[in-house]
Formats: sequence, structure tokens, C-alpha cells
Amino acid sequence: MKAELTILGCGSAMPSYGRFSASQVLSVRDKSFMIDCADGTLFRMREIAIKTNRLNHIFISHLHGDHCFGLMAVLSTLGLMKRTADIYIHAHPDLENLLQPHLRYFCNDLTYKIFFVPYNPLQSEIIYEDKSLTVTTIPLRHGIPTCGFLFKEKPQQLHIKRDMIDFYQVGIKDLNAIKDGKDYITNQGETIPNSFFTTPASPQKSYAYCCDTAYSEKIIPIIEGVDCLYHDATFAENEVLRAKKTLHSTAKQAATIASKAQVKQLLLGHFSARYPHVSVILNEAQTIFANSIIAEDKKTYTF
Amino acid sequence: MKAELTILGCGSAMPSYGRFSASQVLSVRDKSFMIDCADGTLFRMREIAIKTNRLNHIFISHLHGDHCFGLMAVLSTLGLMKRTADIYIHAHPDLENLLQPHLRYFCNDLTYKIFFVPYNPLQSEIIYEDKSLTVTTIPLRHGIPTCGFLFKEKPQQLHIKRDMIDFYQVGIKDLNAIKDGKDYITNQGETIPNSFFTTPASPQKSYAYCCDTAYSEKIIPIIEGVDCLYHDATFAENEVLRAKKTLHSTAKQAATIASKAQVKQLLLGHFSARYPHVSVILNEAQTIFANSIIAEDKKTYTF
Repeated sequence: MKAELTILGCGSAMPSYGRFSASQVLSVRDKSFMIDCADGTLFRMREIAIKTNRLNHIFISHLHGDHCFGLMAVLSTLGLMKRTADIYIHAHPDLENLLQPHLRYFCNDLTYKIFFVPYNPLQSEIIYEDKSLTVTTIPLRHGIPTCGFLFKEKPQQLHIKRDMIDFYQVGIKDLNAIKDGKDYITNQGETIPNSFFTTPASPQKSYAYCCDTAYSEKIIPIIEGVDCLYHDATFAENEVLRAKKTLHSTAKQAATIASKAQVKQLLLGHFSARYPHVSVILNEAQTIFANSIIAEDKKTYTF
Repeated sequence: MKAELTILGCGSAMPSYGRFSASQVLSVRDKSFMIDCADGTLFRMREIAIKTNRLNHIFISHLHGDHCFGLMAVLSTLGLMKRTADIYIHAHPDLENLLQPHLRYFCNDLTYKIFFVPYNPLQSEIIYEDKSLTVTTIPLRHGIPTCGFLFKEKPQQLHIKRDMIDFYQVGIKDLNAIKDGKDYITNQGETIPNSFFTTPASPQKSYAYCCDTAYSEKIIPIIEGVDCLYHDATFAENEVLRAKKTLHSTAKQAATIASKAQVKQLLLGHFSARYPHVSVILNEAQTIFANSIIAEDKKTYTF
């Protein structure tokens, strides 16, 4: 699979220097998933023409305003656009009680349905599954119950060598068995090894979103080896005490997690409003984890 | 007085082409007033460094989301900034019931107080008054109860001719009477006409915000002669039927109101998402009212 991650906002609580607060869209196999939805997310979506026809699931990491205040505008506007497909909002159980009165008042004529799917933020569990991927919560260390999300592709079928399939005139039923790794038995009873027909499956891609968290090694077993890790990097190292106090991370802490979890790429985000430029964040992270890059609003990252 | 109006958003329900939905800040005599507060207003405020230390009153025209969904982000962030001065929100009575649960949940440690000041949207009345100006509601024609707002400076005192005051050695008490138009009586009992001491007061400035309204001549007596009228100009004339149906106005309708009310300047706004460029709106308005101009996000208009 090819995964595309578009950053709608990589700032922290106070939008600053062109950075909106937290929101992003992950597109995988023609499906899109929104992660967090700060104030202004609607504007960003329209600014960079985020397609919404395949966006059916919104994941909210926690109920601080800079991660969910944009929901009403997004949901209301999807109604104005005469959307008909359902929307599922995966969030802390409190969100439904908070939003329902607003939905009834402001959006009483929506053309589509909204379903709240509460998750338990205190344990890691699969909260979404379709034929190609799962989403697992990652409990984080923050001031209120907060989860990250692991998007992980399911194991894929083996690739087929078309010419060998044609040569042996393999039927549809056997073809699927071969894709799943089975050997092939001809009409004459001869066993042909699977490797005659296949090349290895594409690797399973994975993405972990760990925003708004203090340094926590507990997340390592869950995010181990992911292709891309988006991690809280609110502060540079000279603010390590502030990071501890506010339950956020420094760039070096993010990089340490990335290194220990042996992820392939670290995407640094959730920058404090004190940084007009975030090169200090990047430089500090790269001293520990070389493949660190900086998130930028409106930019799409492919992995 | 010098009034400065800064447009934070001049778009309609769907933010488009760089235009946020409705919000603006009027600064008069060192006080600032926010009018409407759409999603993303917080970002815009920080983007163009709107000062908030003298912003104590927010006026919400009606409870459609594109005029108030940004409130929570603004109120929450004012708390993060450790604001201590009270904020007053003038709005339809329903807003308090809608926002209080969110304020309790998301902003339970605010460093300042928020007061909801409901107004009756069905009648024109003074809803704010200080020593230098009044704010009067302007009931509009829209799908739900909606008001515009007239900001009007109070009559000012006459300007003093310093040299004449010195010549007659006028005391403080008499000076104030002279500023109010009284003649001066010397110790010898001689009456000196007020005009010896004064030049005319500066004219009373006034601004009317009439957003989200169908064509309505009922507003003319209230807005007559204002220095600047911000009027709904959602559509060009070829969409006049849509304007009627959605209870918005065309550019020509806005200009007709401006002309009949003999305002000094018409500022066109609330543009539909169908217009990447709004020159058609401007051109059509100017055929009826020459001093029509176009609102632009992030721009400040002085009058």
C-alpha cells in the first residue's frame, strides 16, 4: 500500500506562525481517516482540497479543545455539501454528550448520519478494522485520558507471476489459495511449490500518531517498527522541565522513542507557539534519530 | 474618533479562496469589539496579531455555526493567555445554554469570567453603552432570528481654543461647561459667547454590521447616514432567486440599501463560495452606489 499523510495542523494549543492546531488526514487504499480536528480544520480542508467522499472515520485523541474544537464546523459543512455517507467519530465517551446538543441545535437537518464510537482510553485495543487495515489505540501520558492511534495494514497476499499461472492454467479457486501461500497440485497430482507462482507480498505499512504525550516507553511495544511515527515534539531540550510539567515531549525525547522503537521515520509535530522556526527541534532530534523530519501544515508525506 | 475595522473573515458558510467565515474586530477609542466568531477566528486573530487586552465584548449576530463555531477556541485561548479581564458575549439567549456545558468541560480553570448578555433579536434596542458609544441591534431578515449591530459614537464635546481659555483664565469647572456649549460669564459679570472659546466637535462616527440578511428596507431608519455599512452581498444579480430563497442579498440589493440609507461607504461581504474573485460583486454594487468597496480578510478599514 501507499500511505499518504496530509498535515492540516502541526501546532499546539495556540496556532502560530501559520501552523494550525492538531489535525491530519491519512489516506490508505482509497480510504481517508481524519485524526484530531482543531478549530480551523474546515478552512484547511478546503484550502488544500481534501476530498471528503472517502472520509468516513474521525479519530479524536483526547478532549482538549485544540484537538476537537473544529468538529462542529466540519460536520456542519459536510451537511451543507449534501453528504449522505455515515460518519463515525471515535473518541472518549464524553464527546457524544458534549456534541449532541450542538448537533441537534445547529445541524438538525443533516443529510447523513453521525455515529459516536467511544473507546476506552486506558487500554490499547483495536477500535477499527476493515478488510485492509486495523486501528489500535495507544494510551499516552498526558493531563487527561489521551490515546495515540496505530494504523496498521493487514498482511497482504503474495504477488502472482502471471506467466506461470497461465502456463499451468490455474483456476480462480486455486489462484486465491496460491496467493495465500499454498502449493499447487495439478490435475495429474503433481505438487508445484508455491514459490514457482509467487513473489513476496508488499510489506505491511504502518503509521503511529502519538501527539500530546510526555516521554513514555510504554508505547514502544505498540509502535515498534512502524514506517512513520508522528510524535509530540512540543519543545526543544532547554524546555525539558516545562515538557515534564505540561506532559509534552522534547524533540530529543521523541527521537529517543523513535530510536528505541526502531521506527523507519520520525515526523516531529505539535510545536509550541514559542518557535517561529522549528530548526532547533529538527536538529536536536537528528542527533539521536537521523531519519527525523519536521511536520509542516498543508504538506503531504508518503510512506 | 477614528474607527478601525479589521476583517477576520468575509466568507459565507463555506470558507473558500482564503476567506474565512464571518468575524471582524472594530476598534474605537482604544476599545475593541468582536463581531461574530466563526471557526478559525482564533487562527486569524493570531495571524494578524489582534490585540485582546482591550477586547471585552463579543457580539454574535445569530446562531448559525458560521458565525459562532469559533467561540470556544477563542475563549479557551484567552484563558491560556492568563487573561483576567471579563468577557461579555452579547447573543441570542440560546447561546448561553449551548456553551456553558462546553465551558465547564473544556475551560474549567479560566483565569477570567465570561458573562452572557442575551438580547431580544426581534426588536431594535441599545444593548451596550459606555461613555463614548452605544451599540444598537438591527433586526434582519434571515432564516433564524438575526441581528445586525449599529455602533454609534455619542455626541462629542466641542473643541477648545486653548489661547482664549488662557486669556480669560477659565477654571476647570467652567471649562467643562464651555465644552458642552455654555457661554462663559467672567468674574465681572460679562457674558462671553461660547463661540469665542470653541470650534465644532468632531462628527459622530458610526458603523453598521448587517450580515446574513435578505433585502430589507426596515433597517434603513436605523442605519441612515452611517460612515460605513457592512452589508450581506453573498451573490451577484444572476443569483437573485437564490438570494431570496436563502435569505441573503445580492450586491445590487446591498447597494440599494446603502443608497436609500445615504450611508457614506458600503463595505460588501459574506461572499458565497462560488466566487473565487468578487469583482462581479463590486462592479454590480457600484452601478447603484459608487462608494462601494469589497471586504478582504486580514485588511483594516479606517473611517
